[in-house]
Amino acid sequence: MSRPTRTPLSDSLKQLVGRPATAIDTPALVVDLDAMQRNLSRMAEFCRKHAIRWRPHAKMHKSAAIARLQVQAGAVGVCVQKTAEAEAMADGGVMDVYISNEVVAPQKLARVAHLAHRLASEGGQLAIAVDSRVGIERLAQAMNDARRAGREGAAPAVIDVFVEIDVGQGRCGVPPGRAAVDLVHEIRKHPALRFAGLQAYHGKAQHIRSAVERRETIARAAQDAALTCRQIEAEGIPVGLITGAGTGSLVAEAASGVYGELQAGSFLFMDADYAQNERDPAQPQFEHALFVKTQVMSSGAEHAVCDAGHKSHAIDSGLPKVHAFDGPHELDYANGGDEHGILRPAAPGVKVPEIGRVLWLIPGHCDPTVNLHDHMVGVKGGLLEGRVDRIIRVDARGALT
Amino acid sequence: MSRPTRTPLSDSLKQLVGRPATAIDTPALVVDLDAMQRNLSRMAEFCRKHAIRWRPHAKMHKSAAIARLQVQAGAVGVCVQKTAEAEAMADGGVMDVYISNEVVAPQKLARVAHLAHRLASEGGQLAIAVDSRVGIERLAQAMNDARRAGREGAAPAVIDVFVEIDVGQGRCGVPPGRAAVDLVHEIRKHPALRFAGLQAYHGKAQHIRSAVERRETIARAAQDAALTCRQIEAEGIPVGLITGAGTGSLVAEAASGVYGELQAGSFLFMDADYAQNERDPAQPQFEHALFVKTQVMSSGAEHAVCDAGHKSHAIDSGLPKVHAFDGPHELDYANGGDEHGILRPAAPGVKVPEIGRVLWLIPGHCDPTVNLHDHMVGVKGGLLEGRVDRIIRVDARGALT
Repeated sequence: MSRPTRTPLSDSLKQLVGRPATAIDTPALVVDLDAMQRNLSRMAEFCRKHAIRWRPHAKMHKSAAIARLQVQAGAVGVCVQKTAEAEAMADGGVMDVYISNEVVAPQKLARVAHLAHRLASEGGQLAIAVDSRVGIERLAQAMNDARRAGREGAAPAVIDVFVEIDVGQGRCGVPPGRAAVDLVHEIRKHPALRFAGLQAYHGKAQHIRSAVERRETIARAAQDAALTCRQIEAEGIPVGLITGAGTGSLVAEAASGVYGELQAGSFLFMDADYAQNERDPAQPQFEHALFVKTQVMSSGAEHAVCDAGHKSHAIDSGLPKVHAFDGPHELDYANGGDEHGILRPAAPGVKVPEIGRVLWLIPGHCDPTVNLHDHMVGVKGGLLEGRVDRIIRVDARGALT
Repeated sequence: MSRPTRTPLSDSLKQLVGRPATAIDTPALVVDLDAMQRNLSRMAEFCRKHAIRWRPHAKMHKSAAIARLQVQAGAVGVCVQKTAEAEAMADGGVMDVYISNEVVAPQKLARVAHLAHRLASEGGQLAIAVDSRVGIERLAQAMNDARRAGREGAAPAVIDVFVEIDVGQGRCGVPPGRAAVDLVHEIRKHPALRFAGLQAYHGKAQHIRSAVERRETIARAAQDAALTCRQIEAEGIPVGLITGAGTGSLVAEAASGVYGELQAGSFLFMDADYAQNERDPAQPQFEHALFVKTQVMSSGAEHAVCDAGHKSHAIDSGLPKVHAFDGPHELDYANGGDEHGILRPAAPGVKVPEIGRVLWLIPGHCDPTVNLHDHMVGVKGGLLEGRVDRIIRVDARGALT
């Protein structure tokens, strides 16, 4: 259905700004803004060095304020997966948005077309991915309907369309080669659509632990993309851009000579899953910047229980890790259900933590964890001694359609 | 932090009421109101037959409107796990609320005490569980602070306090026996606290597949609760109530002669995980009433992709099942990430579904699935031919603190 209405920040939240991080009640999603800024600078520098565009995926942070920071740092715009996410970004002043996913429902395509015209009229632009003839025809129909419904004399907007090829993810996209060429011809039949290039994202490669295997996997994906590109250009049609990549594999796409744009998003917050990848020596060193602040609410002889369960953090990519700061890893986190986490000593001699003890969890997966929260608390000066600098609204939280 | 602000329903949502279920865009959380009503009636009848109180857990549906329906059907009130959930229920007109969980943070206990005084002044009541001396002392302190802050001459409110014992869940609660008796004495030192009984919920038992093993497990839990009860009463202290049970085990608690109140919540919607339990012959036949409506957005030679991933449904208790209605099970659902589901034929001869094909998923776990949505679409007359009867707000969505 429609996207969620933006809720005003409560007074108690506004009053938190300027107070010590110790005043943040639990559970809460907290961003270490200093670590986030360092990750942002490292990524911007990496892309400058490799002379490659970057269009970070906003499905990770779901925040227009953070998207604007990324654009200020050099990003060309953002990717999103859903129409409602695109609307939330545009509402928040992000003018260059790419829906790197298929949209086929006429109800949603009407919103896509409306947003394309709106952004074009404001000097921005909207792009989208396709992988089917019916998707292309419905998109063109929606763009034409939106133009007719628009103001007299308004310039007819054109939407950039990327053909998605499946380079190993096994999800959306047509096979590399002929099937993609055929869709390019379909796109070019419609004046309201502009063929912009290829979407070639390999999601599974992101989580291959071996750096060498990740590089080899992306090398094969790049070959598939390059082959498809040559076949399209052999028919006299220029391929403007090949876009893809994620935080796990971005060094491989950047070095491929095939990809012209990186979509990596998670680097900004870094989750426990990505931290388990063997780091490619060429990859910037990204730090954990997203944490769930929690505290012990029950303590027994052999375990304690904290107030953060999987209603506070997503567990699709594994359970959160208890952040150890500079000391040794002391506590293991086990799933205690929606509302509870079970904490056990991770080493001999470590005591079960007492009631009230504050802990910081590193979520297993950023994107769906952020989606569980209405806002993130931005802290500067460190999680322990720092202060609340700002409240970051999760504008696209629950943006499902 | 503070609980989420209630968001107004958007116009497009309001306009959906009265329209055919086919008009619901995807992905969307949909309640089959006819099936829900049958589940509600069966549970009410079961509790009348066994002369046992029921206080369904509102952490399942998170909706004050549904909680009021349950009270109208005979429930004494609701359970919740979080202070913010209790506030959301009270704001929605639910006057008898039990926080069946420990709250130890002074910030939250101040809210608990404020709510206890507020509900008492409106003829309602608040109860809470404890499992520690420090929790009891902090609760009493908060109740006294709230009384002093209250209006001159206002009657001092008393909060019902249940001692949680661990009857096998291995999470919160003190061991059965002496430790519980000691906490009862602690509670009785504080005039603002009234010892109300024992919280004896066995969460793990809910998901034991064998009906016989579930009964045996609950029989042991009931023995632990009864033993603790006798030890408390041996010191001249009456135990008002022993409360617990879930949808998986409720027939065992109802037959135990020990439990006086059932907390089962999931029976109302029934998820794919509970459907895998061997049904106890004495248990009412509950139907699936909660579905994620989704549609195919990409279709290839061997699989299709739908627009509902784990941002639309929780996967902590397993992946959703594709609802088969009256026909055979045709499609298997595999995880495609936050935004996608992978669909494959479940039997020879079944075709890969085409783009636009609508499917209905039965979530693996109701509670965290509901938490992913701002609202549920209530349908009457069946999912296929029915009409949208109402939009049900998820009042306690994201109520973390």
